[in-house]
Amino acid sequence: MRVGILTGGGDCPGLNAVIRAAVRKGERHYGDELVGFLDAWDGVRDRRTTPLSVESMRGMLPRGGTVLGTRRGSPFETDDGVEHVKQSMSDFGLDGLIVIGGNGSLSIACRLHAEHGIPIVGVPKTIDNDIEGTDLTFGFTTAVQIATDAIDRLHTTAESHDRVMVVEVMGRHTGWIATHAGIAGGATAVLIPEIPFDISELCERLTRRHERGRFASIVVVAEGAEPAAGTLEMEEKVYDRFGHVVLGGVATRIAHAIAEQTGFETRVVQLGHVQRGGTPTAFDRVLSTRFGVAAIDAVHAQEWGKMTVLRGENIELEDLTVAVGKTRTVDMELFDGVASHFFA
Amino acid sequence: MRVGILTGGGDCPGLNAVIRAAVRKGERHYGDELVGFLDAWDGVRDRRTTPLSVESMRGMLPRGGTVLGTRRGSPFETDDGVEHVKQSMSDFGLDGLIVIGGNGSLSIACRLHAEHGIPIVGVPKTIDNDIEGTDLTFGFTTAVQIATDAIDRLHTTAESHDRVMVVEVMGRHTGWIATHAGIAGGATAVLIPEIPFDISELCERLTRRHERGRFASIVVVAEGAEPAAGTLEMEEKVYDRFGHVVLGGVATRIAHAIAEQTGFETRVVQLGHVQRGGTPTAFDRVLSTRFGVAAIDAVHAQEWGKMTVLRGENIELEDLTVAVGKTRTVDMELFDGVASHFFA
Amino acid sequence: MRVGILTGGGDCPGLNAVIRAAVRKGERHYGDELVGFLDAWDGVRDRRTTPLSVESMRGMLPRGGTVLGTRRGSPFETDDGVEHVKQSMSDFGLDGLIVIGGNGSLSIACRLHAEHGIPIVGVPKTIDNDIEGTDLTFGFTTAVQIATDAIDRLHTTAESHDRVMVVEVMGRHTGWIATHAGIAGGATAVLIPEIPFDISELCERLTRRHERGRFASIVVVAEGAEPAAGTLEMEEKVYDRFGHVVLGGVATRIAHAIAEQTGFETRVVQLGHVQRGGTPTAFDRVLSTRFGVAAIDAVHAQEWGKMTVLRGENIELEDLTVAVGKTRTVDMELFDGVASHFFA
Amino acid sequence: MRVGILTGGGDCPGLNAVIRAAVRKGERHYGDELVGFLDAWDGVRDRRTTPLSVESMRGMLPRGGTVLGTRRGSPFETDDGVEHVKQSMSDFGLDGLIVIGGNGSLSIACRLHAEHGIPIVGVPKTIDNDIEGTDLTFGFTTAVQIATDAIDRLHTTAESHDRVMVVEVMGRHTGWIATHAGIAGGATAVLIPEIPFDISELCERLTRRHERGRFASIVVVAEGAEPAAGTLEMEEKVYDRFGHVVLGGVATRIAHAIAEQTGFETRVVQLGHVQRGGTPTAFDRVLSTRFGVAAIDAVHAQEWGKMTVLRGENIELEDLTVAVGKTRTVDMELFDGVASHFFA
Repeated sequence: MRVGILTGGGDCPGLNAVIRAAVRKGERHYGDELVGFLDAWDGVRDRRTTPLSVESMRGMLPRGGTVLGTRRGSPFETDDGVEHVKQSMSDFGLDGLIVIGGNGSLSIACRLHAEHGIPIVGVPKTIDNDIEGTDLTFGFTTAVQIATDAIDRLHTTAESHDRVMVVEVMGRHTGWIATHAGIAGGATAVLIPEIPFDISELCERLTRRHERGRFASIVVVAEGAEPAAGTLEMEEKVYDRFGHVVLGGVATRIAHAIAEQTGFETRVVQLGHVQRGGTPTAFDRVLSTRFGVAAIDAVHAQEWGKMTVLRGENIELEDLTVAVGKTRTVDMELFDGVASHFFA
Repeated sequence: MRVGILTGGGDCPGLNAVIRAAVRKGERHYGDELVGFLDAWDGVRDRRTTPLSVESMRGMLPRGGTVLGTRRGSPFETDDGVEHVKQSMSDFGLDGLIVIGGNGSLSIACRLHAEHGIPIVGVPKTIDNDIEGTDLTFGFTTAVQIATDAIDRLHTTAESHDRVMVVEVMGRHTGWIATHAGIAGGATAVLIPEIPFDISELCERLTRRHERGRFASIVVVAEGAEPAAGTLEMEEKVYDRFGHVVLGGVATRIAHAIAEQTGFETRVVQLGHVQRGGTPTAFDRVLSTRFGVAAIDAVHAQEWGKMTVLRGENIELEDLTVAVGKTRTVDMELFDGVASHFFA
Repeated sequence: MRVGILTGGGDCPGLNAVIRAAVRKGERHYGDELVGFLDAWDGVRDRRTTPLSVESMRGMLPRGGTVLGTRRGSPFETDDGVEHVKQSMSDFGLDGLIVIGGNGSLSIACRLHAEHGIPIVGVPKTIDNDIEGTDLTFGFTTAVQIATDAIDRLHTTAESHDRVMVVEVMGRHTGWIATHAGIAGGATAVLIPEIPFDISELCERLTRRHERGRFASIVVVAEGAEPAAGTLEMEEKVYDRFGHVVLGGVATRIAHAIAEQTGFETRVVQLGHVQRGGTPTAFDRVLSTRFGVAAIDAVHAQEWGKMTVLRGENIELEDLTVAVGKTRTVDMELFDGVASHFFA
Repeated sequence: MRVGILTGGGDCPGLNAVIRAAVRKGERHYGDELVGFLDAWDGVRDRRTTPLSVESMRGMLPRGGTVLGTRRGSPFETDDGVEHVKQSMSDFGLDGLIVIGGNGSLSIACRLHAEHGIPIVGVPKTIDNDIEGTDLTFGFTTAVQIATDAIDRLHTTAESHDRVMVVEVMGRHTGWIATHAGIAGGATAVLIPEIPFDISELCERLTRRHERGRFASIVVVAEGAEPAAGTLEMEEKVYDRFGHVVLGGVATRIAHAIAEQTGFETRVVQLGHVQRGGTPTAFDRVLSTRFGVAAIDAVHAQEWGKMTVLRGENIELEDLTVAVGKTRTVDMELFDGVASHFFA
């Protein structure tokens, strides 16, 4: 078979490992020819591709990012976008397409399959771990490890200076990274989008800690965390041209509020893009490899409209519709199980 | 309640995180008093204990090893061993005992509960990941990460010198670490105890690689891997007084055989104890923390004779009998899924 | 002898290693008693101390931060500050005082010795590496390593998205960290306080790179870098109550200018406090240990008013006056030697 | 100019960074053409080369090993070896040759220049740091960091099990790695080739530690350490076909002797090749880059028969004869300065 592959959405550690795995099993086991579209749907539209082979993917397993490049656009944004997808698959003689992407890309894949009959298999990808249908997504443990390493380092500064350190981690819609890194890093508090926070309650908790002689605290904040209605006036957010918050970030606002309400010396650290780049953890490399193998197997089983998922120890297939339009929020049993006893 | 804790068997990253979690939830939520027995069952016999508190466990989350010390003995080795356990629990006024340990310790715990009615909850622990009943054990992803980091480093030496590097990793009975580190590290071959290896077949594979112009290879070997009957004469193993192999190690034997049969320059690296020490991965810290919380919860639910396990995303309880006398071997779907396409 | 120790200024990886080394050689070789003042000069004023011993410093070698705590104040800020220092030394029966600190603390130490005859030995400390008189300061290679690891990670994101990543590293007055991390991380450009930058020239360089097909770039910026007069209007800086820039940071300004002038997708990462916390590199541990040994030796040689320095391979003593009031700027031979050929 | 480059001896982190730096400055600043000989002198003899360019070296800065491959042979081993070198340089039209190598390669380079007038510039390379004439060699801080990370991990196992861990690190002729990693890792004892060790003295020291309640010890041993005459009967060494010790290794012998003489549980870890592979530290990347720049500058200055060296903060040139036939042993001021107070 001839199989196309593309990577969409933000980059994520493990993308290259997925591609490599699909290519290795495809080429060696099935005798497939693999074609990579460059820069996600842009490459489909513009017919920009690169041949993929065991040879060309050599050494890519430990590499972060994606050799195919990635962009955020969609074929549904233009009138002839879907036609370009169909024509492109025909031009390159493709029997199937593997789409590795997040909520956005999987929704596109789902529609392309459901509405237009395009033979697509999806692979869920996000460092945020918020895709419905799979226990874990690759890239997540890498992001958590990087954030945890940073928190480990910040502890010593917090303790030497008796400071509150407010650490902003990724997670616009969900607090998976914040929760796991907060537990792993021994944070004093973790603020997540799932639970609007009460700044006064947080400040009281920090004050009680001080009274017990614990002068250093780490507060982990997901970038999408928000105050409970009426409890903290947020500065108006200022966005740059790419939609990123440059002013009015939640961690900075929280740090100011803590400093004002408690008088404790407070500092902010925004980990930012460091969390999504670089070599994947061993765990993510194994998960990515298994997803890549399962994806090419699914292509040969013609399991169109499905995506690879992790269930316990097994890799399975699940309908793309399961993921579309949903956001998997933090397991409250996990959060509550530790929140009251650890974050304090 | 008054609750005792001990750690048995080999040390493992995450032990301190389990203890800390049980202590934090126990002290803060239940108002428990926690007592740690030193050096596993030795401390139970000799009444050597240390008080455990939120305060005393501070800073222990990221620390490898165990603050309680560990030993390999068993109360069933002596006539009065069990009596000592009972008496010790009575002396310290304990309402329950949390035993964190591997196959050996969990078997002891199971018998103490089943045959002698001692109120015990188990927490499975092994870097080898070979305990039946749980998807994963803490310490495992740390060991795999350390082995993978080492393999990443060895690739460059293998390539610069056109060498075969034979890397021995832990795993006396199962090949979990070897399989995961082999996949994550992009190994050429992985030899595991579950599948007797054929050295000639391996050498042929390495020779074919050379013919394709791939002069560098990494062969990952679990310490318990064995040749298929009659295919490779092993040197007689020489053990030191602690039961460790000092001569006749399988990786060394394999390396010699490869050098002899192929003529390729070959080197051996035995990662050894480095794999089981030091700070746990973020993943293992979270899993350990969840196990510790679940263990103290189980004590309060009087779920005696149970152990904490991971099932998918959830922490559950399972009978200790499920683990006793069994060894969970490598998932062949995982191994075969990658073996033929990746290890080559 | 009875010897006091304090740590001043910002925290820095290796502080505990210096203290431990002075304590070990002091106690074991000289039979000294060591006393640590808490929170720098605050502890001297308030007579807050902790006894230091080989036993109490056990396990502290790899720990970041300082067990003594640190603050930024000075005894010269108050009328009776110096008197407090004298009286405190008398109260504790101290024969000498070891001051581990940066430019500020060493200046204080120098004046206390020169003007008030207080028997002081200094140990230079700064992650910024900008103290005159020593080849290197401990903490510097750790900060550079952390920044380099981050840059390594950012490369893959930059390449996957064809982005310019602007990375702000520490260095208010000098560009040592930026220069070393920029060289080690393979940056496209490095902007340092020593050389006012020309944003148009930088944008042209990035544009030429794009024309050559290099769409990803890493620009490393020291936090103290400034535009050449009249070349870039800086937003007015907004400081928080602790004197930290929260708006108008140079990296954010540069990123906006790049995006505007070139149209390239551009992102900012501010590494912040992560650079100064956590375990020191092996190099910094050795340098710190040698400085600690040399400091206690200098106390016994009554080399008051001196500080420990690294010269080539040797640890030597140098007058504190050499460091006072000066800032060691980046070696232009180093910078120019690589700037034109590497940063491009 | 047309300039050849080769890498000789064992692989070493930073080799690619040296090559990349020479190529970048050569191509961009001087307009040179660079040619790489493959597999050291073998490639010179067999005319096996690869073109080197800024483009081909892209991404190589953080990569361990050497893209040129390396071997241990010498042109002086065969009658026509030198003639091949001359002819090869003529065949490829080379105006100069950069030889990056250890004691062996630099001796070859020195003779080729001195006796045969071949225009050569040397770059000293060894993880062992034992080349005369330079303060440090690249690769050394990487090896020390890897060994220190391993020792950090072994501490927790040693403490959990009350064990003596004997760690063998690289260093056949000198104890640089052992000394630095021993200091950085907080070892109890460090045994180096420069000082024949007395096993009884070591065992007494360990026993005294036990009597003081310190049951865990780390003993760092350079692979070339030897017992003082008559103090410890070594097993006869058994070498494999590549000259590596497979039996009779010093660390194993020491561990057995410790176990016998003290009765303490003792384990051995041989770090092996892991120490020389993989990505260089930031420090080594900077040093390598500076050496590469200095080497191509030396070629253009026709400084034949010289090598690049580090002196304090500066890169300088030194006669190759300074390094030939010598081994730079551990600075006894460094060793003694810490040995009696730290190793105990």
